[in-house]
Amino acid sequence: MFEKILIANRGEIAVRIIRAAREMGIGTVAVYSQADAESMHVKLADEAFCVGTARSADSYLKIDQIIAAAEVAGVDAVHPGYGFLAENAQFNEMCRESGFEFIGPSPTAMEKLGDKNTARSMAIANDVPVVPGSDGLIEDDEAAIKAADEIGFPVLIKATAGGGGKGMRVAEDRDSLVAAVNAARNEALAAFGNGGVYLERYVGRPRHIEVQVIADTHGNVCHLMERDCSVQRRHQKLIEEAPSPNLPEARRQEICEAAVRMIRGADYSNAGTVEFIVDQNDDFFFIEVNARIQVEHPVSEMITGVDLIKEQIRVAAGEPLSFSQEDIKCTGHAIECRINAENPDKNFQPSAGKITHFYAPGGFGVRFDSHVYGGYTVPPFYDSMIGKLIVHQPTRELAIATMRRALSEMQVEGISTTASFHDAVLQHPEFVSGKHDTKFVEREFLP
Amino acid sequence: MFEKILIANRGEIAVRIIRAAREMGIGTVAVYSQADAESMHVKLADEAFCVGTARSADSYLKIDQIIAAAEVAGVDAVHPGYGFLAENAQFNEMCRESGFEFIGPSPTAMEKLGDKNTARSMAIANDVPVVPGSDGLIEDDEAAIKAADEIGFPVLIKATAGGGGKGMRVAEDRDSLVAAVNAARNEALAAFGNGGVYLERYVGRPRHIEVQVIADTHGNVCHLMERDCSVQRRHQKLIEEAPSPNLPEARRQEICEAAVRMIRGADYSNAGTVEFIVDQNDDFFFIEVNARIQVEHPVSEMITGVDLIKEQIRVAAGEPLSFSQEDIKCTGHAIECRINAENPDKNFQPSAGKITHFYAPGGFGVRFDSHVYGGYTVPPFYDSMIGKLIVHQPTRELAIATMRRALSEMQVEGISTTASFHDAVLQHPEFVSGKHDTKFVEREFLP
Repeated sequence: MFEKILIANRGEIAVRIIRAAREMGIGTVAVYSQADAESMHVKLADEAFCVGTARSADSYLKIDQIIAAAEVAGVDAVHPGYGFLAENAQFNEMCRESGFEFIGPSPTAMEKLGDKNTARSMAIANDVPVVPGSDGLIEDDEAAIKAADEIGFPVLIKATAGGGGKGMRVAEDRDSLVAAVNAARNEALAAFGNGGVYLERYVGRPRHIEVQVIADTHGNVCHLMERDCSVQRRHQKLIEEAPSPNLPEARRQEICEAAVRMIRGADYSNAGTVEFIVDQNDDFFFIEVNARIQVEHPVSEMITGVDLIKEQIRVAAGEPLSFSQEDIKCTGHAIECRINAENPDKNFQPSAGKITHFYAPGGFGVRFDSHVYGGYTVPPFYDSMIGKLIVHQPTRELAIATMRRALSEMQVEGISTTASFHDAVLQHPEFVSGKHDTKFVEREFLP
Repeated sequence: MFEKILIANRGEIAVRIIRAAREMGIGTVAVYSQADAESMHVKLADEAFCVGTARSADSYLKIDQIIAAAEVAGVDAVHPGYGFLAENAQFNEMCRESGFEFIGPSPTAMEKLGDKNTARSMAIANDVPVVPGSDGLIEDDEAAIKAADEIGFPVLIKATAGGGGKGMRVAEDRDSLVAAVNAARNEALAAFGNGGVYLERYVGRPRHIEVQVIADTHGNVCHLMERDCSVQRRHQKLIEEAPSPNLPEARRQEICEAAVRMIRGADYSNAGTVEFIVDQNDDFFFIEVNARIQVEHPVSEMITGVDLIKEQIRVAAGEPLSFSQEDIKCTGHAIECRINAENPDKNFQPSAGKITHFYAPGGFGVRFDSHVYGGYTVPPFYDSMIGKLIVHQPTRELAIATMRRALSEMQVEGISTTASFHDAVLQHPEFVSGKHDTKFVEREFLP
């Protein structure tokens, strides 16, 4: 097993990884920007290295600096967390070339899955359903019209290198198609340096359902059930839960097995998430693979009892998974609310600043993963999440009650948070029924 | 179901009860002393009434004031927590006479079990093993000698109204017996106003094992497995765990069934704990029944998934238990450390004062039940516990690792805590082996 690992991240996920490593008896090395000197991940790690100034590009994305810190500290492996360099195949490769295990999939698997078009082809090859769409990238306007006619309107135009809604357009009919394709292409080119776009059938009232998978280097691939992440605001997940509140048992089996086929087919090891869009008929279509741990991994941990970060570390060290598929049983229901430092009454405007008073929710069925504390200053430079409030109860109804109780007792003074927004969502009949889709928040809560 | 309850307590247990009630949609009324105006239970409750000055005798023990608050607030029921008035049969009766349900057993059951000698007789009547001892109270010196000769030396002299080690003596032989009996009698008279003493066989290397039981008013009695509370300092529990680390499965069954017989025989409803002393041969002997919720109830909650406070409230409202004995399965292992505001390097001297910085442990498998926060001043007037750190993992070994990690990341500045002491205990080979007894801490850690 590793003796020491470097965590190439900040915030709650850095704290989360330090916790798992410490419980395994593994030393921890934090990296941080000058703006994060007082951050909890720096205080909790055994060692910490400043890798640059506040801007991510000058610190958390600085591959050379991070590799240098790993070398000075003499670590055995690097955990990238999520975001920043987590899905950067070049960083992955450089870690390995420098002699550090990368706690994640191989650079090859990462690269292939990182390209949406390649990933789609891999899904088709592994008998994983995909949204009907264009056969590869769209070359020109004529090809766009031909493909859209075959798929049927409305169609969705997506950037092959895209994410977070960038480079994405809906075309309702032939007339608006060419302009939409070109707009998406230009946006993608500007955002990702890659103007490749493709077409897909547009799915109405879609639910976002994803499957947590983990694979070792000995050929074992297991899923840890599915998560429903349909509560989204502009493609940003806000509330995640496991299991999905509205999926027939047979479909649950099928979607989980499809995810395992996808991961097995990609020759993938470590934790990954296979994301699907699910329509009104409970038909599911592959969207993409996230080749890393995800923000919402704790809901899967709660219902299965598996510590995913420990398992990631074990797998990266060459050990086999500590469980087999038959060991995985779903116990109860888990919900996670991402608590952001944003003002929900002012269009979710970020609210950085000093937390003058803080009381974390606790008690039966409550887990709070966070890096903040009373007296901590939330810096304006990074994503606005200040914690993940996770509850676990025997039923979804009880889980909602516990989450509402936990939200009501959380006390954060000095900055605004999205706690009140979550409470409103949790009371909404559409959420309570479990029949909400990814447009639910926009339809019901946004102006 | 009740619409509103009053919590006749303070600190973490008041917070714990408020949480359960809120999740059930029940309004909460706190009472507090002037010293507790800034306490978290006051902030979290829907309403709060000041019932007196700092001294417990002038506030939390003032039955009239508390009943008056319940009347003004118009509550349906009173939850007494633990300590203070929790086992006061007169308070129990007065609540009921004033029209408030008392969330606990009947005054009659409480009174009978509160007298150790009566409780012992009830145990014998219900075929629950007791430590061989005198047949009732010791009348005079001659009776003491006769009883001790029959029991066999060494014998333990105990006060019938005793607790916390007061009125307790060990006599090694006939020569020291009479003086020890009289010393115990005088101490008990001074402390409890009752000089009644009885004799028991002295058990060497005893373990403290107790069984969590809950009964409804429909004749259902279930146990929630046992807890081992052998890590004690001067009869004060410091670390509790469930299940017991060192008890053969057949014995576990027997002890749990004996506890159920005891509770059934006492015509008892609501939560209660049957405490046993267990010797080197795993023979167990009844000590007493705690007719209330206990500090260490969360370890039983973690391994069974049952929310004991919610169940107490349900039972008090006349509902049947929400589960049957067959539903109770033990999942994994749970440990609780009582974090006290005391200085372990200065003979556990209390350390009241302002908490200038606070970071609560969290993450996978960690629950922290507490009423404190950064900026809170721990008052010097009450018991020194500032929180209960509870972990739950698939195995005892993993639970110990998680507890050590959680202790290492807890940050409390401004006062001393016992966190470092717990860490030392958790590393000790005797604790790790699970073969420690109630003298372990005194033998290995105290001067």
